[in-house]
Amino acid sequence: MPESTLSTDPFTLDVSSWLNSAPISIESLRGRVVVIEAFQMLCPGCISHGLPLAQRIHRTFDRDEVVVLGLHTVFEHHAVMGCDALEVFLSEYRIEFPVAIDRPIPGQAIPATMQRYGLRGTPSMLIIDRDGYLRDIAFGTVDELALGAYLGRLLAEPAAELVRAPAESVASDSAFCDIGGNCT
Amino acid sequence: MPESTLSTDPFTLDVSSWLNSAPISIESLRGRVVVIEAFQMLCPGCISHGLPLAQRIHRTFDRDEVVVLGLHTVFEHHAVMGCDALEVFLSEYRIEFPVAIDRPIPGQAIPATMQRYGLRGTPSMLIIDRDGYLRDIAFGTVDELALGAYLGRLLAEPAAELVRAPAESVASDSAFCDIGGNCT
Amino acid sequence: MPESTLSTDPFTLDVSSWLNSAPISIESLRGRVVVIEAFQMLCPGCISHGLPLAQRIHRTFDRDEVVVLGLHTVFEHHAVMGCDALEVFLSEYRIEFPVAIDRPIPGQAIPATMQRYGLRGTPSMLIIDRDGYLRDIAFGTVDELALGAYLGRLLAEPAAELVRAPAESVASDSAFCDIGGNCT
Amino acid sequence: MPESTLSTDPFTLDVSSWLNSAPISIESLRGRVVVIEAFQMLCPGCISHGLPLAQRIHRTFDRDEVVVLGLHTVFEHHAVMGCDALEVFLSEYRIEFPVAIDRPIPGQAIPATMQRYGLRGTPSMLIIDRDGYLRDIAFGTVDELALGAYLGRLLAEPAAELVRAPAESVASDSAFCDIGGNCT
Repeated sequence: MPESTLSTDPFTLDVSSWLNSAPISIESLRGRVVVIEAFQMLCPGCISHGLPLAQRIHRTFDRDEVVVLGLHTVFEHHAVMGCDALEVFLSEYRIEFPVAIDRPIPGQAIPATMQRYGLRGTPSMLIIDRDGYLRDIAFGTVDELALGAYLGRLLAEPAAELVRAPAESVASDSAFCDIGGNCT
Repeated sequence: MPESTLSTDPFTLDVSSWLNSAPISIESLRGRVVVIEAFQMLCPGCISHGLPLAQRIHRTFDRDEVVVLGLHTVFEHHAVMGCDALEVFLSEYRIEFPVAIDRPIPGQAIPATMQRYGLRGTPSMLIIDRDGYLRDIAFGTVDELALGAYLGRLLAEPAAELVRAPAESVASDSAFCDIGGNCT
Repeated sequence: MPESTLSTDPFTLDVSSWLNSAPISIESLRGRVVVIEAFQMLCPGCISHGLPLAQRIHRTFDRDEVVVLGLHTVFEHHAVMGCDALEVFLSEYRIEFPVAIDRPIPGQAIPATMQRYGLRGTPSMLIIDRDGYLRDIAFGTVDELALGAYLGRLLAEPAAELVRAPAESVASDSAFCDIGGNCT
Repeated sequence: MPESTLSTDPFTLDVSSWLNSAPISIESLRGRVVVIEAFQMLCPGCISHGLPLAQRIHRTFDRDEVVVLGLHTVFEHHAVMGCDALEVFLSEYRIEFPVAIDRPIPGQAIPATMQRYGLRGTPSMLIIDRDGYLRDIAFGTVDELALGAYLGRLLAEPAAELVRAPAESVASDSAFCDIGGNCT
């Protein structure tokens, strides 16, 4: 992951609204590991891989340890992936975790949080440590065993860790919808 | 399947428009077996089972023998499953076969073709024989081996067959989105 | 499939013993389609693909229409795939259909039936029509939809068919253990 | 897991021979997490779940961190699961990690290591921490995400940890071949 996104500042979301929850700040989750699943409701790889994995994480870990959030990062076909459609989608797919809508920027395709952290497309999984810092961004499919080990290591870190080295990424090579509009 | 839907009349579609194709009449396909996949773009079972199976049929059989058509039978959440959204969906999911939009009936949730043939929900697979008659409706998941055998038998029938007995249905017990709005 | 194996003679098994059944002659099954799954108990592709498919065929079709038989064609590691080991294997894997043991030929690796019909390795699926003639040999993985259609067409043939053209093979490209001892 | 098997002594193997490797003592692996996959070559659940998972662990982790070993714990059908058969099996299934053969005890069905640690059947996964102590035994299917997290936490422990609390087991409810001879 580009060094620039491993900011010295804690991770923050810039979103316009929330579904399944009142607004949540990442700061309020300090002490827990946070997994953010960035997706689009009409992205095939998000439906076949990204969201099912996010749901398994949501069900596997204790909420006091790992919190799963969705982030709807629409960067194409904005007209048909609005809030009403997303609400139906979350209901039909029984997504239970909180989902934020990445803030649209007038005149630009890519929304605010997606731009700030340089996401390459969807699905992307962002992993935030117990101190609120972004530690990895995984674009495309994610190996479950490697992801589990990564989360296990983050959970074993004391909060307020001073040194924060980028661990080996859990991202694989195969991606899905990239910003260039190619889905693979 | 209810006897009433095994009409003595050839099967016809009552649709408002077509994507991926100019309008097609079932009559023009006389001599071929026709498989119609009735789906909704936000029905999880359609995406995980129904449409992938329809695509496998489309790729497995010679087009002179078996023709696959999609039928978008929206019976819930009409506002977010309009023609524009469907067009994006077909492109993202790389659905290549022709897709018709079942004709909406003002003031009613269930569209015209879905009503006429008594479909119970989505996904439903309608199987039309070489003479243009509806032979089976399978609601929910479909066993691939049994479906293959069913199609093989229909292909072996001479066209203009006089006696048309309902064969054993290829439908299984597990269904997805029924008209009552329950998805399983 | 090599033309030479599409013999003008009906198909016959040359086997040394049977498990799960008294001896069965192919002739006695005249009128039914017969699917013979040639396998070795230590062939990974047989366990992951060949035998599960054979079991699904066994459970899907009426026994008066399609009969499934196993054929243990040991061509390597003979010492550890004897009859006692096979008996344990069939019990642990709950294989319920009759299984014949291809007759070993002293001094040769490849057993009798496997030699006669030129099988290339395991798993191989042999398909016999209602008149007792071999119609296809599929080596490796088999597409379920295409296989279903093939069986459906054979079931639609009147027995005592005079003209017997080789249909398009249901075999795919990917194979498992070939006679050269390579497993892929 | 029964408290009695969480011994105050380091874990040791009592085996008769090794395949794929010279003999290995658990003591020599001090500093690494060790995953031992207890299996039988004719146990269906071992082939479909246990061994593929062990192979994924073997390929996912750095060998300096996690070492995978197989343990052939034959407790039924001893005559057909001898060393020669196992050698063919490991070769056909391309099992690359070292495999030990649990020491048979004359006149008893259950071999030595299996008895000592009270294994309930196969597949069972034993997890040894960096100090050489047994921390969990998972019988049956294992959730990959939970297992990854468990290994990640063990890797984060300093070696020579003094307090060794039993973590929540990664074992699921569904098992395969239990000692009573039932396979599910």
